[in-house]
Formats: sequence, structure tokens, C-alpha cells
Amino acid sequence: MAAHSKALQITTNGKGTYPITQAVAAVVRDSGISFGTVTVFVQHTSCSLIIMENADSTARHDLERYFDRLVPEDVPYFQHTSEGSDDMPSHIRMVLTRTSEVIPINDRSMQLGTWQGIFLFEHRRAAHRRRVIVTVVGEPV
Amino acid sequence: MAAHSKALQITTNGKGTYPITQAVAAVVRDSGISFGTVTVFVQHTSCSLIIMENADSTARHDLERYFDRLVPEDVPYFQHTSEGSDDMPSHIRMVLTRTSEVIPINDRSMQLGTWQGIFLFEHRRAAHRRRVIVTVVGEPV
Amino acid sequence: MAAHSKALQITTNGKGTYPITQAVAAVVRDSGISFGTVTVFVQHTSCSLIIMENADSTARHDLERYFDRLVPEDVPYFQHTSEGSDDMPSHIRMVLTRTSEVIPINDRSMQLGTWQGIFLFEHRRAAHRRRVIVTVVGEPV
Repeated sequence: MAAHSKALQITTNGKGTYPITQAVAAVVRDSGISFGTVTVFVQHTSCSLIIMENADSTARHDLERYFDRLVPEDVPYFQHTSEGSDDMPSHIRMVLTRTSEVIPINDRSMQLGTWQGIFLFEHRRAAHRRRVIVTVVGEPV
Repeated sequence: MAAHSKALQITTNGKGTYPITQAVAAVVRDSGISFGTVTVFVQHTSCSLIIMENADSTARHDLERYFDRLVPEDVPYFQHTSEGSDDMPSHIRMVLTRTSEVIPINDRSMQLGTWQGIFLFEHRRAAHRRRVIVTVVGEPV
Repeated sequence: MAAHSKALQITTNGKGTYPITQAVAAVVRDSGISFGTVTVFVQHTSCSLIIMENADSTARHDLERYFDRLVPEDVPYFQHTSEGSDDMPSHIRMVLTRTSEVIPINDRSMQLGTWQGIFLFEHRRAAHRRRVIVTVVGEPV
């Protein structure tokens, strides 16, 4: 058994979903680990991770619009508003989705389903550099 | 340390929650691993996993009805509608719940609380065969 | 590779978010494991875990108020009401958040971002003793 880790830098340009499947797959392939699990972890509280439909981008657009309505920016009772009207909704959208995703590995590849992709879900309007830690644990090749 | 994995096939017959605790427990018991963690991962974007109250089935029915209202099928702004009115809501309900659950193991058993069960949460109306990957990582017996 | 586990007891006094980052960090530090992942798992279905903004407590208050409105107690169609009006909402709030969090470890420390804290999210009004299992898997020091 062995463990391997690498940090990814993801540049975001406003609210939306950003595909990271290929970047995570490369870390798994280069890890020297054949069989086990990979943990993808984002080090922020105003963006999050999701596994989502990867083929039709309208599905992601609909998801983003749904979240804009589920957690609107103009909630009158929010007190934590000093960092802008998109800040408190960003924390709530993060809590409603995921900070980590754990995916099984076999034969140096993630065992994702056909339609599954991994996405960083950016909840802030301004551009950001986001840090994602990819940790592989399992049996070496 | 060792790793062990098995794929489960779960047959669903419409929207609802389907218990998989016993099937996962059997994989853990047969894994030869005594102490560590088990990762349960579903390879689909229109169903998901939850840990939920396992005793009173009305709790699960209430949960299902709540989700039917939180993510209704008749959202007027959805564009991703080619696969039916239950398709886009299924992706959103998946994102709002979980694609993987990670549970600690001790003495070849999951350390679930008394009322915790693992369920596959089916979000599509049609019957489906769903694939769940169970991966155990830890110290051998 | 090695695995290490410890159970934490968390006392809650009503609905709210309770910081557990320091308690989890101590288990990691004492585990003898330098590099890998830690899984934090709560053994209950009426409270949950979140990673949340740890600096400004108004962000947590806003989050709690948001959840009070997203999953209100007076939903007319709930059937599972025998344990009180806060019981069924507690299960739904748990499903909408997380039962486990998985965090990468390097050099005997969790690789949390600057603003990330781990919190137990209590959804019941009465005082409770909650049990959290912390399991570390990785390479020994």
C-alpha cells in the first residue's frame, strides 16, 4: 500500500462549473497506484466540488440557474455581507454540495460512470485561483 | 494494509430509496479487511446515495416528498429536457445528496449508528439497473 | 501504511454549528500517521457534518437561519412527526449536508484551507451527546 498526493491550481472566471476530470485522472495515472481510492478536496469555503453529467452542457447551465434561485443573493436576513452579496450565498451553496469527492480506482483509472465528470463549482463572481488537493491511497502497480 | 473492491448491481423500479446496507456489509465482511474505511460509490448522475433513518419508513417517504417539492419537475427555465421531465431534476437531486459515502470499519463491520442505513436514492421514474462500487481499504484480519 | 481510529464525544445544546476542528486535528497528530487522509464520520441521522467558514461567526448564523427556512418545521405533509416537529427536518437537513468529511493529511496535519473549519451541525433542539469516529489511513511517520 502507498499514498501519493498532488495540488492542482484551478483558475476560475466567475460563477459556473469548471471540469477537472482530466487533471485528476492525470494525478491518478502518475501516482504509481493501481487500485484503491482517490480523494479530491477543495481548500475553500466559497466554491465546491460536484460530480455531474458531463455530456450536455445545458444540464450544467440548468443546475447553475437552479442554485441561483435556491440560494438567492438578496436574502434580507443575511448579516455576513461585508464581502459582497455573492459571499454568503457562496458558503451556503458550498455546504449544499461537497468539499471532497472520493472515487474508486482500478487499473490506474478512476471508476467513473460513462456520464460522470468532476467539476469545481465556483460560487464567486470575481476571478479566483482555487487549490484542489488530490490524494491517492492504494496498492502500487 | 490491503484494498478490496466489489461491484454491486441494484435494480430500481421508479423513484424512491432502496436499502443497500446489507449488501455493503457483506462486501466488508468478505473483504478480509478488519479495520479501516469503506467507500460506497454510485456510477450514475441520475441517482445518488444517502445515509438515512432506517427504522420508520415514513421518514423516507417524507424525505422523498420533500425532494419532489424542493426540485420540482415543472421548472420553466430548464433547457435540458430531451430525456424527460424527471431527468434534469434527477441531476440536481443527485448534486444535493451524495455520489459517495465513506464509512469507518472496525472488526470487519461498518461502524454505523443504530439508526443509520445506507440507501440508493433513485430519481428516475423508469426501472434501472444501477452500479455501485464498494471499495474497502485498511488492515487485514 | 497504517490505520488509526478514535471516537469523539461531542455535547450539543440545541440547534447550531459546533466546531470540532481542534479535536480532529489532535487525533491526526497522535495517530502516528504522517501522510494520507482522515475520515470524520458522525453516527447519527439528526445531526451532520459540514466544512464551513471558520472566522466570522455571522456566516454560520446566516447558514443556520437559511436551513431553518429551507427545511421548515411546519411542513403540512410530514407523517414522521412522533418524535417532535424538529425530528423530520433534522433528517432532511442531514441528507442535504454530510455524514462524513474526508480531508487530506500531510506532515501530521490536515490540509485545510485558511478559512475552513469542521463543524458538527446539530439539528435537534434538545441537548444531545453525539459520537464522531475519526479514522486516519496513510503512511506512518
